[in-house]
Amino acid sequence: MDVLLNHRTIRKYTDQPIDESLLNEILTAGTRASTTGNMQVYSIVVTRDDEMKEKLAPTHFGQPVFKNAPVSLTFCADFNRFNKWCRLRNAEPGYDNFQSFVAAAIDALLVAQNVCVAAESKGLGICYLGTVTYNADKIIDILNLPKGVVPVATVTLGWPDEDPDQTERLPLEAVVHQERYKDYSEEDINRLYKEKEELDANQQFVAENNKETLAQVFTDVRYTKANNEHFSNVYLDVLKKQGFLK
Amino acid sequence: MDVLLNHRTIRKYTDQPIDESLLNEILTAGTRASTTGNMQVYSIVVTRDDEMKEKLAPTHFGQPVFKNAPVSLTFCADFNRFNKWCRLRNAEPGYDNFQSFVAAAIDALLVAQNVCVAAESKGLGICYLGTVTYNADKIIDILNLPKGVVPVATVTLGWPDEDPDQTERLPLEAVVHQERYKDYSEEDINRLYKEKEELDANQQFVAENNKETLAQVFTDVRYTKANNEHFSNVYLDVLKKQGFLK
Repeated sequence: MDVLLNHRTIRKYTDQPIDESLLNEILTAGTRASTTGNMQVYSIVVTRDDEMKEKLAPTHFGQPVFKNAPVSLTFCADFNRFNKWCRLRNAEPGYDNFQSFVAAAIDALLVAQNVCVAAESKGLGICYLGTVTYNADKIIDILNLPKGVVPVATVTLGWPDEDPDQTERLPLEAVVHQERYKDYSEEDINRLYKEKEELDANQQFVAENNKETLAQVFTDVRYTKANNEHFSNVYLDVLKKQGFLK
Repeated sequence: MDVLLNHRTIRKYTDQPIDESLLNEILTAGTRASTTGNMQVYSIVVTRDDEMKEKLAPTHFGQPVFKNAPVSLTFCADFNRFNKWCRLRNAEPGYDNFQSFVAAAIDALLVAQNVCVAAESKGLGICYLGTVTYNADKIIDILNLPKGVVPVATVTLGWPDEDPDQTERLPLEAVVHQERYKDYSEEDINRLYKEKEELDANQQFVAENNKETLAQVFTDVRYTKANNEHFSNVYLDVLKKQGFLK
């Protein structure tokens, strides 16, 4: 519980490597996560080599955390292995569709989060890179992912070389609904976002970006409509190319 | 770490309810999970009432675990709250696209897994219901989910009234790749699936289903092509209706 409550994203790591045995222990804990019908329709690609880091870095937009991390893990929805098994066992797989991608992506993400909790329980720091779903096409080429395999999350791991404050969260009532979804009134939004908007760090963020409101930093700078639409097309094309969408 | 390694799915619960304060503690731990740009683009709908259980039960194909559980949680990708906030802050959201759904679904799933780990650390048992992505359209109606909100995972929670064996997992080498994806040869598949196929429980499963191989139980009975294609269309329609796909 303390491990979960103390989570903070770590973007700076020491030079200390992560032992193979420790990594395997963490990955094993990951594979205990729930999985659809116990099919385990996911794979994890480990990046340690400098050569591979160099190749992958641009797909993560050169974020220093990626090059700095001794280990990165790319979690993939993977029906390739399962399909191969089926075909070798006189069974015709019917997993070339969107629902199968969703099941496999869920599998991969539950494992990813278990791996993060396991890593943090061992004192390691982690950082999720959202870029993996933006540049999935390039990552597929670099990691040699065959048809049936799509990257859904990349996590960097390393021994912490910083001790940042926890980032704020909305009050629990902002994200939890009892029995039915209760839509938000203007007053609700004002109340629930008040603390977030008043935080010094967030007010500074608005000023640095020359914006009027914190929301504008998101819509105009960090997650713009143009980028979202571009990367939506990339990811949908990836799902088609990898055999999950017609 | 022990909590992760000891995970088993629990489908039978005692009559003991789950205290509100305990549930809130668990949900709070959930919200500490990493979230895209700290946007927290997810919501959690709590089901406790018998009336709501009755309504939702058919969407989970009447699985006894759903009715038996004192609490169920439906984790949703949710840009509705964030969009409302943007519009009230003179910011025009550009989140009506697939990439935004993916980001929000990832957020929801990382929270879901954190909630499961937190619950298990308190002695509760959990079960993921894959049915939520099959019948998302009906769940949206019953839970009153507005545009911008899509259910991605349902988890049942309760005090364990059974102590099942852990289910088997493939050896770690089956799911982990070093640096690049190494595709599987026939020999690899035979070796990696050997233990799974030889398990008494799995052999019994094949016999009960009158099949030749374990793989056929998946392709012909549990996850058929016809069902997958049907529910793919349902979920894609849901993404369109909820504003994430054109």
